[in-house]
Amino acid sequence: MVDENVVYVGNKPVMNYVLACMTLINRGADEIIVKARGRAISRAVDVAEILRNRFLLGQIGVSDIKINTEQINREEGGVSNVSAIEITLSGGEETE
Amino acid sequence: MVDENVVYVGNKPVMNYVLACMTLINRGADEIIVKARGRAISRAVDVAEILRNRFLLGQIGVSDIKINTEQINREEGGVSNVSAIEITLSGGEETE
Repeated sequence: MVDENVVYVGNKPVMNYVLACMTLINRGADEIIVKARGRAISRAVDVAEILRNRFLLGQIGVSDIKINTEQINREEGGVSNVSAIEITLSGGEETE
Repeated sequence: MVDENVVYVGNKPVMNYVLACMTLINRGADEIIVKARGRAISRAVDVAEILRNRFLLGQIGVSDIKINTEQINREEGGVSNVSAIEITLSGGEETE
């Protein structure tokens, strides 16, 4: 159930991901997790802030933020470390 | 005192900011705050992860992460919203 409520943020326009999150919320999800790696991390923060301050103002808040490091296999061989973020948005908690 | 322990992450190489944080820690800061806005947010996460997993492994942990939206004045007039992050790193708490 939790895995269904994850939105992975990549290199598309930020509103694509905002819309994906809105769709999950409108289907009844009471918690969504916005995930991103590398340079997309900034965009994931944008997604959370746009939802929290504009489209879902007063309905959701940021309940948790985690950062970690993931290892990815490079095409040319070897392993790279890449930073990652998980932002949990949920109704109630930090909203007022 | 707290303000002295802030490192603002911008567009320079990530190791510049890692070094700035190490300097603060070596001067006795028991808590540092890594701040960034816009695209530099990803780099701020890199700084925290590199410190936590490499240079200060076992000595510091992430104790808090906040995101928010700041308004900046554009050169051509008007105001833009930009996402921002504050990552608090401190000794003890999440280290093991």
